[in-house]
Amino acid sequence: MTQRRCWKLVRRPVGDIAPGDLELVQENLPDLAEGQFLLQIIYISLDPTNRIWMSDMEQYMPPVPLGAPMRAGVCGRVIASRKAGVAEGQIMAGLGEWADHMVTDGAMMSPLPSLPGVPLAASYGTLALVGPTAYFGLLDIGQPKPGETLVVSAAAGGVGQIVGQIGKIKGCHVIGIAGGRAKCDYVVNELGFDAAIDYKAEDVGAALDRLAPGGIDINFEQVGGPIMAAVMQRMKLFGRVPLCGLISTYNDVTPAEEPGFWTLMLMRRLTVRGFIVTDFAPRFAECGAALAGWMLAGQLKTRQDIRPGLENAVDAVKQLYSGGNFGKLLIEVAAP
Amino acid sequence: MTQRRCWKLVRRPVGDIAPGDLELVQENLPDLAEGQFLLQIIYISLDPTNRIWMSDMEQYMPPVPLGAPMRAGVCGRVIASRKAGVAEGQIMAGLGEWADHMVTDGAMMSPLPSLPGVPLAASYGTLALVGPTAYFGLLDIGQPKPGETLVVSAAAGGVGQIVGQIGKIKGCHVIGIAGGRAKCDYVVNELGFDAAIDYKAEDVGAALDRLAPGGIDINFEQVGGPIMAAVMQRMKLFGRVPLCGLISTYNDVTPAEEPGFWTLMLMRRLTVRGFIVTDFAPRFAECGAALAGWMLAGQLKTRQDIRPGLENAVDAVKQLYSGGNFGKLLIEVAAP
Repeated sequence: MTQRRCWKLVRRPVGDIAPGDLELVQENLPDLAEGQFLLQIIYISLDPTNRIWMSDMEQYMPPVPLGAPMRAGVCGRVIASRKAGVAEGQIMAGLGEWADHMVTDGAMMSPLPSLPGVPLAASYGTLALVGPTAYFGLLDIGQPKPGETLVVSAAAGGVGQIVGQIGKIKGCHVIGIAGGRAKCDYVVNELGFDAAIDYKAEDVGAALDRLAPGGIDINFEQVGGPIMAAVMQRMKLFGRVPLCGLISTYNDVTPAEEPGFWTLMLMRRLTVRGFIVTDFAPRFAECGAALAGWMLAGQLKTRQDIRPGLENAVDAVKQLYSGGNFGKLLIEVAAP
Repeated sequence: MTQRRCWKLVRRPVGDIAPGDLELVQENLPDLAEGQFLLQIIYISLDPTNRIWMSDMEQYMPPVPLGAPMRAGVCGRVIASRKAGVAEGQIMAGLGEWADHMVTDGAMMSPLPSLPGVPLAASYGTLALVGPTAYFGLLDIGQPKPGETLVVSAAAGGVGQIVGQIGKIKGCHVIGIAGGRAKCDYVVNELGFDAAIDYKAEDVGAALDRLAPGGIDINFEQVGGPIMAAVMQRMKLFGRVPLCGLISTYNDVTPAEEPGFWTLMLMRRLTVRGFIVTDFAPRFAECGAALAGWMLAGQLKTRQDIRPGLENAVDAVKQLYSGGNFGKLLIEVAAP
């Protein structure tokens, strides 16, 4: 019998996540049934949507039930298997739990390819969840064309850093919005964005007027609030808005109903489309091949913000909502 | 030298159109230059967007300059021509003026086909402007599929009556929203909508819950305000919103910034796309053929609300914003 440590959701947070909302427990795992395997979790992916799953607001999957393990993207190593086609030692990634081990039938998991010379944290932190989110949101909804201007908020985060680089690959003029000089320097100097706006130090609207005087073709929207408003007001005719997230609102107790820009959407003939990465699941293979190809060709670099220790998951996830992470936020539960 | 009567915009309306904002003047028309023709205007199309053109708000064409003839969709008969390919007696339709005659190079006009057994008011009031608006908005943006639920506001108006009937042709469950029992009875009994909601007598949200308990796939949006809110809150996963107009806001002095439903758009993965019929100009021939075919097959009926007399244009256009029209609103300037 395997023992594990696991975070359970014991109370729905009201506003910011508070001590006692989640509880780290020790428990026994059941023996493997036919068709199951035991996964030693190596990385837990912490994502803005985790806060949504903790709430009972309207959302795109069932909320995590009270008393249940906290849901998360994870990757890990199979250490015992009674599932055909899944071998010990295999690295699997998909939907899992805030835990150090889990027993699963793997219905929501798939093998993570190993890329030569690429650490597991980078391949997991690029090919899983954030990479497909960036890829389908930008390419399918954003429809970037060479010479167009793309603005991406949360630019140094897990999704944003990839969106901007795919934008450059597609010939766009790419402007990132991020908090702090270090993140802005990173996306310009390391990732090749054309410019970055430090929303903590600059007026975003004035900076956009300076950096994109002709307006914005694509707003890859991740944050909502005043930053979204500044970008929306500068959209060009026939602009596109892949609506990926609204992180600035996720801790609101009663979310403000933000302005709709309806007249502007009509007059400038904008397209706004909300999406969730799993909508594109049938095309994950296409996406994985493209992302891996760009990574191996040196066209796609990503940064992970790795925090060791399952016990730190709650403190770490809260960093997402204050911009405390720098790159894709991962909890390292076990050595890769 | 031809004399004409023409409405000029002398002052931008503040709120509702007021006496003195437009002025009916008598003036001489210039002689025809090479490449021009003289059109006797038969029908002037009065459309919600006219109020936008009178203002200097952000819009999709230049506002009508102060002192200039009021712009409108028109159709008329060529009574003199110095333009190659345009013959006397030809019926032309396109962008013109609130006037009884006009001299034009016809750059924004094209011949209006004559349909056997169809009065000019019906062919003009269907094939021009409103028909293409309904056709492209519903088919290209709405992407209707058999069995889906379509809601159209301003259902007995010029565009709405056509949207609902194309929806039926495409196999949708069609719910119209209109003001008053007569309009509701018309769209159900005469046009074959599945149901109609009288927004002046019923709670729209409660009626939608009853008529579309499974939710709404397509919201053909024309009005904004509380009716839009009631529909948006009931959209289904992957719903589409062709954003055609926001008539409830056009007379606002300082338009209220209406709620954006951003969280709902994200969670339900909605697509909202603003459009103007001229965006689809390269495909007007395709649309004209389809609309004419449906009309001749008896699948598309339309009603015109014809008001005689150029002098009544201002009083008539104001009816649009209070729901005083019933069908496509036209001014009859001369006998067809």
